[in-house]
Amino acid sequence: MSLTKQTDQVKQIETGSILTPKGFQAAGIHAGLKRKRKDLGAILCEVPASVAAVYTLNQIQAAPLKVTQESIAVENKIQALVVNSGNANACTGQRGLKDAYTMRHASAQQFNIPEHLVAVTSTGVIGEYLPIEKITDGIKQLEPTSIEGAAQSFNEAILTTDTTTKQTCFQTVIDGQTISIGGVAKGSGMIHPNMATMLSFVTTDAVIDSVELQKALSSITNQTFNRITVDGDTSTNDMAVVMASGLAGNKTLTPNHPDWSSFYEALKLACESLSKQIARDGEGATKLIEVQVNGALNDEEAGKVAKQIVGSDLVKSAVFGKDANWGRIICAIGYSECKINPETIDIAIGSTMTLLQSQPLVFSEEQATAYMTDEDTVVINVDLHVGEGFGKAWGCDLTYDYVRINAGYRT
Amino acid sequence: MSLTKQTDQVKQIETGSILTPKGFQAAGIHAGLKRKRKDLGAILCEVPASVAAVYTLNQIQAAPLKVTQESIAVENKIQALVVNSGNANACTGQRGLKDAYTMRHASAQQFNIPEHLVAVTSTGVIGEYLPIEKITDGIKQLEPTSIEGAAQSFNEAILTTDTTTKQTCFQTVIDGQTISIGGVAKGSGMIHPNMATMLSFVTTDAVIDSVELQKALSSITNQTFNRITVDGDTSTNDMAVVMASGLAGNKTLTPNHPDWSSFYEALKLACESLSKQIARDGEGATKLIEVQVNGALNDEEAGKVAKQIVGSDLVKSAVFGKDANWGRIICAIGYSECKINPETIDIAIGSTMTLLQSQPLVFSEEQATAYMTDEDTVVINVDLHVGEGFGKAWGCDLTYDYVRINAGYRT
Repeated sequence: MSLTKQTDQVKQIETGSILTPKGFQAAGIHAGLKRKRKDLGAILCEVPASVAAVYTLNQIQAAPLKVTQESIAVENKIQALVVNSGNANACTGQRGLKDAYTMRHASAQQFNIPEHLVAVTSTGVIGEYLPIEKITDGIKQLEPTSIEGAAQSFNEAILTTDTTTKQTCFQTVIDGQTISIGGVAKGSGMIHPNMATMLSFVTTDAVIDSVELQKALSSITNQTFNRITVDGDTSTNDMAVVMASGLAGNKTLTPNHPDWSSFYEALKLACESLSKQIARDGEGATKLIEVQVNGALNDEEAGKVAKQIVGSDLVKSAVFGKDANWGRIICAIGYSECKINPETIDIAIGSTMTLLQSQPLVFSEEQATAYMTDEDTVVINVDLHVGEGFGKAWGCDLTYDYVRINAGYRT
Repeated sequence: MSLTKQTDQVKQIETGSILTPKGFQAAGIHAGLKRKRKDLGAILCEVPASVAAVYTLNQIQAAPLKVTQESIAVENKIQALVVNSGNANACTGQRGLKDAYTMRHASAQQFNIPEHLVAVTSTGVIGEYLPIEKITDGIKQLEPTSIEGAAQSFNEAILTTDTTTKQTCFQTVIDGQTISIGGVAKGSGMIHPNMATMLSFVTTDAVIDSVELQKALSSITNQTFNRITVDGDTSTNDMAVVMASGLAGNKTLTPNHPDWSSFYEALKLACESLSKQIARDGEGATKLIEVQVNGALNDEEAGKVAKQIVGSDLVKSAVFGKDANWGRIICAIGYSECKINPETIDIAIGSTMTLLQSQPLVFSEEQATAYMTDEDTVVINVDLHVGEGFGKAWGCDLTYDYVRINAGYRT
C-alpha cells in the first residue's frame, strides 16, 4: 500500500479500503433491483463491533433508518451492515417497515448472528415498495470475504447515479499498535424519480467504546458530512455509520488517552476525504469547490458562512463559468445571519485577492480564470476579521448537466 | 381602463399603472449607464407622500439604501424616488455613499424639493463605482409627467435582465371615494457580474398615515415579496416602497376604519401581483410555480413550508422536466423544520392527487405531464393535516437558461 499523505501522526493509505482495518469482510452483488449493476452489499465484522451512527435530520425518515436505530439501541453494537441501492424504501408506510424488518431478519439468518446486530439501509427511488423477494434471495448469495476486490464490490453495490466509487483509508499508531480507519461513501446522485442519499460507512480496528465513538462521530460529522452541499436538499435516507472491531490491540480509546487526538484526527480526515469525494461527484459537477472562512466569531459561524457560500446557486454557476465573481460571494456572506462587519471582508479566489477590507481590488481576470479552468478544486478564501473562528465547506459547481439529470423524466 | 378581476371590494384595473392614483408623475430616460436601454427613472408626487419601505435583510446593504433610510427618517414622507439601473452602487465604500448623496442632492435640485424628501435606489453591477456625472447629467433631463407612456418609461428604466416590465393596479372604494393602488417592479435578473435586485414601487392616493402604511406593508411583505424565490440569494439592494399621496379624499385610514380591510386587501393584491410577475420572470424561467400549503401549525409555518418547496432545486428541475415528482416535494417538507406528521401528508400537482395521508397513489402520469406542459402556472397543493395554517409561495423552474445566464462571463 502506498503512502501519499502524512501529518505528524496520521498517514493516508492510498489503496486502503474498509477491509484494511482488522476483522472486516465485504461483499457486493447484483440482486436485480437495478438492470445490470451491483445493488446489494454487506459489511460483516468477525466480532460485534462498537458502533456510532448519525442520521438525516429530515423529519421524513425512511423505514430502514428506523430499524437500524432499533438494532443499535439494544447494545450499541452491530456485526453486519446490509445495503441495497435502486430503492430507498422511503414513504412506504407500514409495508415498508415490514420489508425493512424482513431484510434484517434474512441478513441475521444468512450471517448466523442475532437480528439486533444487523443494520439495514437503502438508497434509490422514494415511494416504491422494495422488491422484497429479490432482496431476500440476494441476501442468501451474500458471502463476505476479505479478498482483494470484495471492498470494491461493496463500494459499487451502494452507488446510484454516482459516477465513481468513493473510498478512503488512514492509519495512525496508538499504544504502539497501528490502527486503521477505512471508509466508503456514495454521493448525492439522482435515481428516478427522487433524490438519493449520502451514505458513508467507516470501519476501524481501534478499541473504543461506542459512547466515545458516537461523541467523536457526532462532532466530526458537523465538520465534514454536514459541511457538504450539492443542491441543498436533505435526503430522507442519509446515514453515516462507524464500526469499530477492536482488533487492533490498543488500550481502550477515550478522550483521556494520550493518543486520542491522533485517532480523532484520523477519523476526521477519513470523513473529510469521503465528504470531498461526494461533493466532487455531485450531480453534473465539473469542479470541487472548497470554501475556507477565517476570522469568524467562532468555528460554528465560520462553517455556517462557508456552507452558505458553497450552497449559493449564483456562486456555483459562476464557478462553472470560470468567473471570479466576488460580488456573489459577499452577497452570500451578507445573508448568512452570522456576525460580520460589512467594512472588513477579504475575499480571495485561489491566490487572486479580489476584495480587501471590503474594497474591490484591481486583479488579473486572466489569472483568476486560468486558475478556475485549470484546477480541479476551486478554493475560495474569506476572512471576516471579526473573531478567531475557522471553518471549511465543500460543494460543486452548478452546470447544465445538473439540470439535465434532474429534469429527466422518470420513465 | 378595462376591469378584469373583482373581489367583493377590490377591482383589478388591467391597464392601470403607478400613475393611476392621483398626484403622481413619472419619467424614464437613457442616461448612458446601459448601452442603449433606459436606465434612469423617477416617480414624483405633487405633494410630500406618506411613505412606507422595507429593505433587504442582507447585512451588506448598498449605499442608496442607507441614504433612503436617512431621508425617510426625517418626517416619514418622500416626494420623489429616483432609480438607476446598470449599477447597484453596492460594496463601494465611502465613495459609494458620497455618490448616493450626490444623486439625492441633484434630484432635490431638479425637482425643487428638500433633500430629505428624495429616495434613491440603484440596481445592477456590484462593486463598481457609479458613473456619477452620467447620473447627475441624466437627472437634469428627468421631467416627470402624467401623460400616457410615462409610467411605461419608468417601468423600463428600472429593468436589468428582466424580460418584461411588471406593473399592477387595483381600486377599491373608501368613504365613497375610489382609491387606486398602482405598482411597478423589477425582478431578480443578472447584470454582469452580479446578482440584481427585487425593486417594487407602489403608489396610492389613499389618505393614510405613514405609521399605519408601514405596518400594512410589513405585514403584507411577509406574505408576498418575502414569499418568492428564484435562487435563494438575497440581494444587497432589495427594496419595496409605498408612496401615498393622500389625494383620494377618504377619511384617514387606520385599522379601525370600516373599510380598512378593503384597502389592506387591495394593497396585498397589488404586492402579490408584482411578486408573481417577478417569480414568473425569474432567470431562465419557463413556468411560474405556486405552492399552496394547508393544514400547517399556523400561517407562518405554512408559508415557510411553501417557500421551502418552491425553493428546492430538485422540485424546480422536476417542474422544468414536467415530472410529477412528489418524492422531492415531501423531502422538502421533511427538512422544513416545521411541525409535520410524516403519516398525514397530502400532495396534489394541479388536479392530480399523488399522495394521500402519506400513501403513494396510482395516478395518471400523462394527465400530470399534460398539465405541467400546457399551463403557464404549475400549482402544487399540500395539506399537512396538523393545524389550520395556510400560506402560499411562488417561484419558477430551474432551467438550462438559468445556468447559461449565470455562468456567462462578465465581459
